[in-house]
Amino acid sequence: MAKFIFTNMLGSFVFDENCSVIDQALFKDIDQYKNKKQYQEKLIQKHKGLAEPDDRQLFKILSFFKNREYFSEFHKKNLELTKKSIKESVNNGLFIVQTASSIGEIDKTLNLLTKRLREWYSLYNPEASDKIKEHEKFALLIAKKSKSQLLKELNVDEKDSFGADLREKDISVILLLAAQINSFYALRAHYENYLKELEKETCPNLATILGVTMAAKLIEHTGSLKRLAEMPASTLQVLGAEKALFRHMRNKKNRPPKFGLIHEHQLIQKSKREMYGKVARALADKASIAARVDYFRGKFIGDKLKKELIEKFKIEY
Amino acid sequence: MAKFIFTNMLGSFVFDENCSVIDQALFKDIDQYKNKKQYQEKLIQKHKGLAEPDDRQLFKILSFFKNREYFSEFHKKNLELTKKSIKESVNNGLFIVQTASSIGEIDKTLNLLTKRLREWYSLYNPEASDKIKEHEKFALLIAKKSKSQLLKELNVDEKDSFGADLREKDISVILLLAAQINSFYALRAHYENYLKELEKETCPNLATILGVTMAAKLIEHTGSLKRLAEMPASTLQVLGAEKALFRHMRNKKNRPPKFGLIHEHQLIQKSKREMYGKVARALADKASIAARVDYFRGKFIGDKLKKELIEKFKIEY
Repeated sequence: MAKFIFTNMLGSFVFDENCSVIDQALFKDIDQYKNKKQYQEKLIQKHKGLAEPDDRQLFKILSFFKNREYFSEFHKKNLELTKKSIKESVNNGLFIVQTASSIGEIDKTLNLLTKRLREWYSLYNPEASDKIKEHEKFALLIAKKSKSQLLKELNVDEKDSFGADLREKDISVILLLAAQINSFYALRAHYENYLKELEKETCPNLATILGVTMAAKLIEHTGSLKRLAEMPASTLQVLGAEKALFRHMRNKKNRPPKFGLIHEHQLIQKSKREMYGKVARALADKASIAARVDYFRGKFIGDKLKKELIEKFKIEY
Repeated sequence: MAKFIFTNMLGSFVFDENCSVIDQALFKDIDQYKNKKQYQEKLIQKHKGLAEPDDRQLFKILSFFKNREYFSEFHKKNLELTKKSIKESVNNGLFIVQTASSIGEIDKTLNLLTKRLREWYSLYNPEASDKIKEHEKFALLIAKKSKSQLLKELNVDEKDSFGADLREKDISVILLLAAQINSFYALRAHYENYLKELEKETCPNLATILGVTMAAKLIEHTGSLKRLAEMPASTLQVLGAEKALFRHMRNKKNRPPKFGLIHEHQLIQKSKREMYGKVARALADKASIAARVDYFRGKFIGDKLKKELIEKFKIEY
């Protein structure tokens, strides 16, 4: 007499030819469900000659589980499984995306706030903003030094300054903005470091070929290391230049883009113009290999790949 | 014999009829130049019968100063005067503009950063972001409380959370962003206070009628209290709605705007729709009076003006 085995989230079940349960191994939790093979095997050992149900029998068996009493159990198990999958999907790749986006937003904000700081502080000491061009240095110096110290260092006679004499309280609010900007720069540096650590764990090869920031940008752009690894090298090469690529595809008059996000790479920047295409192609090839090795947790070959690029184009980076 | 008096930046000079200098009072600095009346007076007392030069004589006198030896002196004095004017142009109005712009930019920043924080932190504890809608409260709570504390307060069983268990170092970088956001909120509060103080000194009447933030926005929009005071009330009424106003002027099909920046005012918000125009008009009238009294450093009449508005429309604000 034929007997059938059937397994779902609730457990492994043995049915007779009338589709009544004659034996079962219920799963207590999702972990047991994930090891279902082991439970099935035990039942198969116990009941000799078990078969897989055919379509007609399967229909009967599924009807059996349509019973209301199983509903809440299914719901619970499903929720548990979903929760587990969500939790397991959180990985370094997501942290890389979040950190890289965060750094991008910090940069945007720093630009906005430092421009405001320069305008505001220039009421008091316009010479400093004129002579200290670099944003980070500017915010740091005005927070640390008094107007007269600063002017002295910049070789400006205080009498020649076009700045007004502000009240202490009007100066202090400006310096609060400078302090905030400085602590923002410190946060940015911290995130850069964290990104470096994450990539050392997750994509050391890609980081070696492209540098920490560019590797993060590519992962951010595609959404995950997985997607980057599954991509052809030629796609990786033009990531970020989608607009130009599609313009080319619609309208063959425009040339295809030679590169997208990887444009800023030293290897390309240091090449001659006529070599751009070749270099971008080779760089994308190596980056693609690196991403795949990283995704499948292969050995560290970043140094070797990088050396090959350097030797091929005789460009250090 | 006619003698002439002539004064410029360098000093007060007495010329004879041949336009040779026969007496002079040189100005040592810009302050003496600003008190030139007093020096002229002395010379007038000393030399009886001094006249103003006519056109022909003036031409001769000006030629006299074309001499090279005066050039560097003119340059120096001019520079000094410019510097002084610039310094004196720095006033509370400028601080109000800078502070108001700064608050606007901080708001933009906070919005951007808190969205990032929510997304990032939700990998760890999505329930918190779901249940705490207010940005400021969210950033404050997650910085202060652990995940389990928070979930308990939000009545979520920790076992039911969809968040992943992150490593300590992955959590700490997220909390650093929260801390940064909190210190931005503190800075914003500080600037609000400072703005209030500035307006108390500079435009107490306007601030009473419109509130601190709106008064600052109007001053920011026009660039100074002076310009705001010189403006007709009907212009003040539609400040910030320039686009709609000019559209109306080009093309009479569109109605003119009833209000611009003052739209957010409680008095308008609490009125019925059909009263909008009337209320906006009355509010702009009072605000315009207030701005003028403030600009000319008149008495505090803000309370009186406000009371009139409240009684007219029977709306408290």
